[in-house]
Amino acid sequence: MINNSPGVFISFEGGEGAGKSVQIVRLREKLEELGKKIVLIREPGGTAISEQIREVVLSIKNMGMAYTTEVLLFQAARAQVYRELILPSLETGKWVLADRTSDSSIVYQGIVRDFGVEIIKELNGLSTKDTYPDITFLLDVSVEVGLARRAASDKNDRLDLKSKDFHTKVREAYLSLAESEPKRFVVIDANQSIEKVSEEIWRVVAERFELQ
Amino acid sequence: MINNSPGVFISFEGGEGAGKSVQIVRLREKLEELGKKIVLIREPGGTAISEQIREVVLSIKNMGMAYTTEVLLFQAARAQVYRELILPSLETGKWVLADRTSDSSIVYQGIVRDFGVEIIKELNGLSTKDTYPDITFLLDVSVEVGLARRAASDKNDRLDLKSKDFHTKVREAYLSLAESEPKRFVVIDANQSIEKVSEEIWRVVAERFELQ
Repeated sequence: MINNSPGVFISFEGGEGAGKSVQIVRLREKLEELGKKIVLIREPGGTAISEQIREVVLSIKNMGMAYTTEVLLFQAARAQVYRELILPSLETGKWVLADRTSDSSIVYQGIVRDFGVEIIKELNGLSTKDTYPDITFLLDVSVEVGLARRAASDKNDRLDLKSKDFHTKVREAYLSLAESEPKRFVVIDANQSIEKVSEEIWRVVAERFELQ
Repeated sequence: MINNSPGVFISFEGGEGAGKSVQIVRLREKLEELGKKIVLIREPGGTAISEQIREVVLSIKNMGMAYTTEVLLFQAARAQVYRELILPSLETGKWVLADRTSDSSIVYQGIVRDFGVEIIKELNGLSTKDTYPDITFLLDVSVEVGLARRAASDKNDRLDLKSKDFHTKVREAYLSLAESEPKRFVVIDANQSIEKVSEEIWRVVAERFELQ
């Protein structure tokens, strides 16, 4: 189910180095210039309870965590963020911009990690109350460009060190997911400059929501 | 799916004051006399990770926790306890005695709290790897007797203070669940003395597993 509330829900998805964070900041600025109220979300954080869950997931002492436990903890954190922050914001007409949400679970856990797409979709339905973004921008970047950008930045974390094969699988999984939901997904060629990508995103948003 | 490993999995279910803990201790003693290796489980505890999850669920500062979050956290803890403790114990031929497990979620969350039986069953399947007890003893006690026993003990906790109506619903939900799975459930009249209940339990266990 697509978001039916007065607010607008836009998510950004894509692999490493796709430029999600910078594009979210740019979109936020443009929307704020028009007087929109913006809420930025980056799971699993965002509420006191979801941060506590995040700590359990990430704690170095919990190396023995079963993968199913991790999947359920992510969904528990999501359930809290949606109920405490996302859904109330949408109900009061705000714009929610999410740096990754339910589609990341489908791609990384369901497909790449082979946990199963159907079960992740069911868990997503439960945690999000079947609320999905109005638009999901898939920032699609070639594996080479993505990795080169990450190498040039100092933001490398554990996930960035995965193999090229991993990043290729992520990219393909995202593209096939986008193809399966063409009304919601907008695929943007993120090999382009930040400026170009930002213009394309704005064109889509302005047209869809009749801005300016 | 019923447990297919060399070990034996027995769970105890029932409302407040049914006498689960004392019966588990008695069964354990008898099995140990026969040289069986016993593992006692009481969710959500039992492993370091599940205890951390339990802390997040129970912390007084988390009063704003969404019910779906709570449901998912319980299942995350269960996933860990099954993978770290229950399944390996069963695989090595031990006897696992559980003071409540997946059926409690169906009764308290799925039915009484009306979260939905089907979704709880799916979550149970995920967290338990579709492993259910060989025998589930439902210690069925009338609401009056159960509450009187609890009032006489000093073990009153938050749950015991719920209304008589609540306890009636729990009892009825357990009985209908037992009826739907007659091969696994053994309903014991727990209004009887501890001695009598313990004898009935032992008769069932000894016969089923050809002990003595």
